Amino acid sequence: MSKPNLTSFTDLYQLTMMYGFYQAGKMNDEAVFDLFFRKNPFQNGYTIVAGLEKVIEYIRNLRFTEADIQYLEKTGLFPDPAFIEELRRVRFTGNLYAMPEGTIAFPNEPIIRVETRLFEAQLVETALLTIVGFQSLIATKANRIVRAAEGRPVMEFGSRRAQETEAAVLGARAAIIGGCVATSNVLAGELFNLQIAGTHAHSWVMSFDSELESFRAYAKVYPDNLILLVDTYDTLRSGIPNAIQVFREVFATHGRPKAYGIRIDSGDLAYLSKSARDILDDAGFPDAKIVVSNDLDEYLIRELHMQGAKIDSYGVGTKLITAFDQPAIGCVYKLAAERVNGQWTPRLKRSENPEKITNPGVKKILRFFDRHTQKAVVDLIMLDDEPTPTQPFEVFDPVHTWKRKVVDHAHFELLLAPIFVNGELVYKTPPLTEIVDVVKRSLDAFSEERVRLSNPHTYHVDLSQKLWDTKMHLLNELARL
Amino acid sequence: MSKPNLTSFTDLYQLTMMYGFYQAGKMNDEAVFDLFFRKNPFQNGYTIVAGLEKVIEYIRNLRFTEADIQYLEKTGLFPDPAFIEELRRVRFTGNLYAMPEGTIAFPNEPIIRVETRLFEAQLVETALLTIVGFQSLIATKANRIVRAAEGRPVMEFGSRRAQETEAAVLGARAAIIGGCVATSNVLAGELFNLQIAGTHAHSWVMSFDSELESFRAYAKVYPDNLILLVDTYDTLRSGIPNAIQVFREVFATHGRPKAYGIRIDSGDLAYLSKSARDILDDAGFPDAKIVVSNDLDEYLIRELHMQGAKIDSYGVGTKLITAFDQPAIGCVYKLAAERVNGQWTPRLKRSENPEKITNPGVKKILRFFDRHTQKAVVDLIMLDDEPTPTQPFEVFDPVHTWKRKVVDHAHFELLLAPIFVNGELVYKTPPLTEIVDVVKRSLDAFSEERVRLSNPHTYHVDLSQKLWDTKMHLLNELARL
Repeated sequence: MSKPNLTSFTDLYQLTMMYGFYQAGKMNDEAVFDLFFRKNPFQNGYTIVAGLEKVIEYIRNLRFTEADIQYLEKTGLFPDPAFIEELRRVRFTGNLYAMPEGTIAFPNEPIIRVETRLFEAQLVETALLTIVGFQSLIATKANRIVRAAEGRPVMEFGSRRAQETEAAVLGARAAIIGGCVATSNVLAGELFNLQIAGTHAHSWVMSFDSELESFRAYAKVYPDNLILLVDTYDTLRSGIPNAIQVFREVFATHGRPKAYGIRIDSGDLAYLSKSARDILDDAGFPDAKIVVSNDLDEYLIRELHMQGAKIDSYGVGTKLITAFDQPAIGCVYKLAAERVNGQWTPRLKRSENPEKITNPGVKKILRFFDRHTQKAVVDLIMLDDEPTPTQPFEVFDPVHTWKRKVVDHAHFELLLAPIFVNGELVYKTPPLTEIVDVVKRSLDAFSEERVRLSNPHTYHVDLSQKLWDTKMHLLNELARL
Repeated sequence: MSKPNLTSFTDLYQLTMMYGFYQAGKMNDEAVFDLFFRKNPFQNGYTIVAGLEKVIEYIRNLRFTEADIQYLEKTGLFPDPAFIEELRRVRFTGNLYAMPEGTIAFPNEPIIRVETRLFEAQLVETALLTIVGFQSLIATKANRIVRAAEGRPVMEFGSRRAQETEAAVLGARAAIIGGCVATSNVLAGELFNLQIAGTHAHSWVMSFDSELESFRAYAKVYPDNLILLVDTYDTLRSGIPNAIQVFREVFATHGRPKAYGIRIDSGDLAYLSKSARDILDDAGFPDAKIVVSNDLDEYLIRELHMQGAKIDSYGVGTKLITAFDQPAIGCVYKLAAERVNGQWTPRLKRSENPEKITNPGVKKILRFFDRHTQKAVVDLIMLDDEPTPTQPFEVFDPVHTWKRKVVDHAHFELLLAPIFVNGELVYKTPPLTEIVDVVKRSLDAFSEERVRLSNPHTYHVDLSQKLWDTKMHLLNELARL
């Protein structure tokens, strides 16, 4: 879908910094960068990570093409030919750790940790942020909508409103990770082996002399997947009566369709779906499905349920594929450590806004689960070389440090997996169906209060004592500057 | 940037309808579809059209690959092998009219008019909507931000927050159409010959033992484009004094830089920019530029001006590249006419919502300009075969029909240009610089009240009497159903 080689997909300042590092003799200095977000999107209680499959493809193909090199030379910004030669030699030579797709992540947890030369660590920043940010955003949005639908299937119908064709296709994949059952996008289906869905549009109905004739023509070709769009002219007075007429004809000549029903794409969906249900039931079609669409999101779906709407499945477009209420997650990529004389030296960015202060050092994340309930109890961010704490042990809130909690009888998972080691891919991408299962299973480990749509409980993400001490030490040092 | 062949980038229902049209013997029936939007985004007074360059590439490459065909066969949805052969033969064989990129468009005006077989007219719907919708959205958003900046240059810095890599690159191009002077995205610069911009990030500063040392190192490589990011630790106490120190050193050793100054990326930009201006002036650097960034949009920029902020140029990211406050424009693509026995027969979609009722027939759009003031006075949508009205003539509001206005002493432009005729490309894509000029010149033709950011006057888009009559006739017919 994307240009296979995205090496020059980067902000110019990465290249000017690379030039500067080269000139300052620092290009081979090793650094650790963390990619993370500071707040869950949509006031959700968690974020579903997605995008690693494309990140892997991008990193594997990291090398400038000759056209890229010629362009960069022509800019005049990099007059040293030896630097241009270094650009020609660019490959990803370091380590990359990442949360696998489908992982449930929380604010400030590194989703990706890059350990490599400053040179290439800078180069990859922009693409990593763009890929992981968007795909995680859509997986999370889709998951909210799916949760609101309470078991009714949700189909992703947003391609035409997506932010260009790639966002439509990769967004469709992310929506499936989030829990959608199908997409309307054929190319996404083809590329990622997704279930595709769709029947007909208003133009089908309009292109025949009458609605009834159009329904009959559709039933002739798809008698076993007979979802008729009933709102082209008048849902209750024309669309549904004509659909019922055609259902009768199909039952009589072809037999009961494998799937049949109506789709409503406009008007008051609560009222229309209830009326439609009554009419279909009265006509002897109690198993006819009612599918609805039209600018839906998790809030509207919840309202429809509260109003007793009779809906069997949802098609969701614009609000899902663009994450309409918050179209960016705001991922950042921050220097966390540099290797100085062979030792990792932690680095920290201070800020006027305390929530923007970063966590220094090379870090790992442990998620602890209660052995009895299997529920997640706390995530602990630790320095990578720290030993796993012996239970029972105490964790504390990194801001309100008097808030403490004892972890005992817990097992843990490490959230970051090695993806590239010394430039070599060491990770096998799981099939998408497995990622979908991971999301479902992972969410089961979080209590209802943490995954609800509104005002979720905040899940605890704490720092180890050693990491917290390191951070405070650096902050105090900077305060003395 | 995108997969060169997007033929299977379509909603599944286009293909099931194509199968239905094939089976109903209607695949070669000729139809006219209009692509348009119903409301300007962001409560703006107009929309800047963009995306045609990619549309042309898409249409020219319209043909299923063998992989596409195999995938479609495998779905089992198209069991008739003769239909699969028709898919193999798919090319764009008809006419496509479009507003050139940079055209100022208004609600309900066809941006694209497709005249071709139902078969391929359906196939292309999804891609046309996705491409034109997104690119027009971003061009319009960028234009609002540029207008708010009142002549100060605006740079597009949003790649990392874009909805995937393609949206970043094509969004950067659209931002330039909207009036931005540069983008940070190197690939966009390379592909579209855009001005690229960028200096260094916080990580540059953090990777040196001190901020001063980092600034010196940067000055060594870029003494003539010396924009230093001053907010890594403390803008006023550390960043600006260190920048001034380095400016002094550069002036002493290298001479006055061609461009120099500071960038502030956090904190209170009004307060910090004013303080920075004072400090820089006092230090003898009155021509040092102050560049700011950090979640800006047109509203924040306007507020900064009202507060007397001292800012020379803006870097705008997330809010621009995602059109954050309205990330989709809601373009639609509606059947307007079908050829029946050689005659174009108008078609109309009714709706419970009167604003969703479409304009039937094959249509053209005339924009009338006052001969004296050169200001645009009205757009008139007419049936394509209507003669141009003789002046003076009266136009009327299509809803409040008693609102009338006389057009006299006016010349006009036709807004739709032929792009493909009988499947052949007949249009030469202008260079981007020309499109940028078209936007500027076109906006000059609209009064201040129509292009202001808040509560703009509504520009008149009227229907010819004959088109209005046709619409009313069809509506009354449908009401009798």
